[in-house]
Amino acid sequence: MLRDTQAGVPSPVIDPSSARSVVRTRVRFVETDLMGIVHHGNYVIYLELARVEWLRRRGLTYADWASRGLHLPVVDLTLRYRAPARFDDELDVETTLVEVRAATVRFDYRIIRVSDQKLCTEASTRLARVDADHALRRIDDDLASELLRPEVQA
Amino acid sequence: MLRDTQAGVPSPVIDPSSARSVVRTRVRFVETDLMGIVHHGNYVIYLELARVEWLRRRGLTYADWASRGLHLPVVDLTLRYRAPARFDDELDVETTLVEVRAATVRFDYRIIRVSDQKLCTEASTRLARVDADHALRRIDDDLASELLRPEVQA
Amino acid sequence: MLRDTQAGVPSPVIDPSSARSVVRTRVRFVETDLMGIVHHGNYVIYLELARVEWLRRRGLTYADWASRGLHLPVVDLTLRYRAPARFDDELDVETTLVEVRAATVRFDYRIIRVSDQKLCTEASTRLARVDADHALRRIDDDLASELLRPEVQA
Amino acid sequence: MLRDTQAGVPSPVIDPSSARSVVRTRVRFVETDLMGIVHHGNYVIYLELARVEWLRRRGLTYADWASRGLHLPVVDLTLRYRAPARFDDELDVETTLVEVRAATVRFDYRIIRVSDQKLCTEASTRLARVDADHALRRIDDDLASELLRPEVQA
Repeated sequence: MLRDTQAGVPSPVIDPSSARSVVRTRVRFVETDLMGIVHHGNYVIYLELARVEWLRRRGLTYADWASRGLHLPVVDLTLRYRAPARFDDELDVETTLVEVRAATVRFDYRIIRVSDQKLCTEASTRLARVDADHALRRIDDDLASELLRPEVQA
Repeated sequence: MLRDTQAGVPSPVIDPSSARSVVRTRVRFVETDLMGIVHHGNYVIYLELARVEWLRRRGLTYADWASRGLHLPVVDLTLRYRAPARFDDELDVETTLVEVRAATVRFDYRIIRVSDQKLCTEASTRLARVDADHALRRIDDDLASELLRPEVQA
Repeated sequence: MLRDTQAGVPSPVIDPSSARSVVRTRVRFVETDLMGIVHHGNYVIYLELARVEWLRRRGLTYADWASRGLHLPVVDLTLRYRAPARFDDELDVETTLVEVRAATVRFDYRIIRVSDQKLCTEASTRLARVDADHALRRIDDDLASELLRPEVQA
Repeated sequence: MLRDTQAGVPSPVIDPSSARSVVRTRVRFVETDLMGIVHHGNYVIYLELARVEWLRRRGLTYADWASRGLHLPVVDLTLRYRAPARFDDELDVETTLVEVRAATVRFDYRIIRVSDQKLCTEASTRLARVDADHALRRIDDDLASELLRPEVQA
């Protein structure tokens, strides 16, 4: 069985300047709720779209994932809500790869409102590498080196 | 090519008393928007869940659909918004099969707030019978007779 | 009572070249369903975000709406699904103002996949001008002339 | 300033048998994604609807909240995904009040598939008591005793 924390498999060293991308999005009307603010569940969506873009900027498009049977479902998720975002706010989702293990990776996030640089949300997600049948698969050296590349498009 | 309105293929006669089911749901907090009412896009979801339940009450569960390669995607949709629904409202979705053609069916809907019997939304959807590759398929006699059954569970 | 089709209130002439904006969006993972395509309800969201951007390009930002008590809820909606869009597709939402009446406006839409120019969806929405209490309000000459402006930012 | 962990304000003792409710829901088609399973963001919605029902069974309906200016936004949230849920699955959301502090409460959750009693998701949320202006407010004795009541409707 594949263990996620194997002795003797050192996590690769992550260069912080390469590991971070900032993805901008704008709050949609449908993402608000009757409190007049962004519904707390929608920040999960912001994390996801930022992650997809983080991967794209390193050459990992969805067409690639599909052809390689590469899937990275979220296995755990933490969110801390600091300040509410509102309809039409532009948000920067700072997305940083912080850990690469045998079969999982972890990203940390800070969601910041562009207009006043207010920190709205902090978050962290762990993702597992699985195949099309949801079976855990090793993050091999090729994939690891792709994840450790700097972004090519800001 | 399969035509949806073939000469010589009469639409089966629909018994109005069999063709109608009422499915109750309750508005979720996440379904509201900053106007304090249900976001207009969420009524599409209410139609869908009512349709799934309409089929279940005639013995057509999702396990069946999947095993038979049966899919019924929406090909057109009309909604008229009459009165806003709000968080925690109980809604009755009256769902009526009104037409069965060679490869499509049409359902009409009325969404009514339970507390005051206010009509919130009227809607209509046409669905096409397709296979797993999205290719149009005939609604054969077996499927038609299943659709024309009365509901067994109220 | 405010009537939407008043004798003697001619609808303003709409210049087709001014009335149209194209808003690009990209399909999010969460917007797909188990059929592997965009869930049909999510096109309602694409229409909404295109409309918000259509207004912004004519100087009507949400900050404006709020300060003026201007709301434009959807009162009816029609969608025809032509071809499925998929995760990560870029979509152009062509959004055209086609009618301005006493208290309502109508927009027509064509959602086109950028990669192959495939028409995915056609749609139409009617919106009513209401105040913060959901009461119908006249679209006065000032608002009409704002709506009839050409976009300033492509 | 209101502190959430005040010396001398002991957290009330929570009776585990009173503090737990099980709320059943069924996975909607729209809640799935192209992996064929429930999108991970939708579990946040299941927690929310279970919490609303948990409160209702203790006499705290939304009509009450609104009239008392009572709001309980989520301030932090943790989710661990154990097994995927699928379209049409019935899910039991076990919801337990585990902590009542000066201005916040914490609920823990286990989401279990009814058919095979598989644990799909574990979760925890902290909610803050705020007023309509999002200002933190004390959970007074009246509210605390309402929260500590057993459910009246199973």
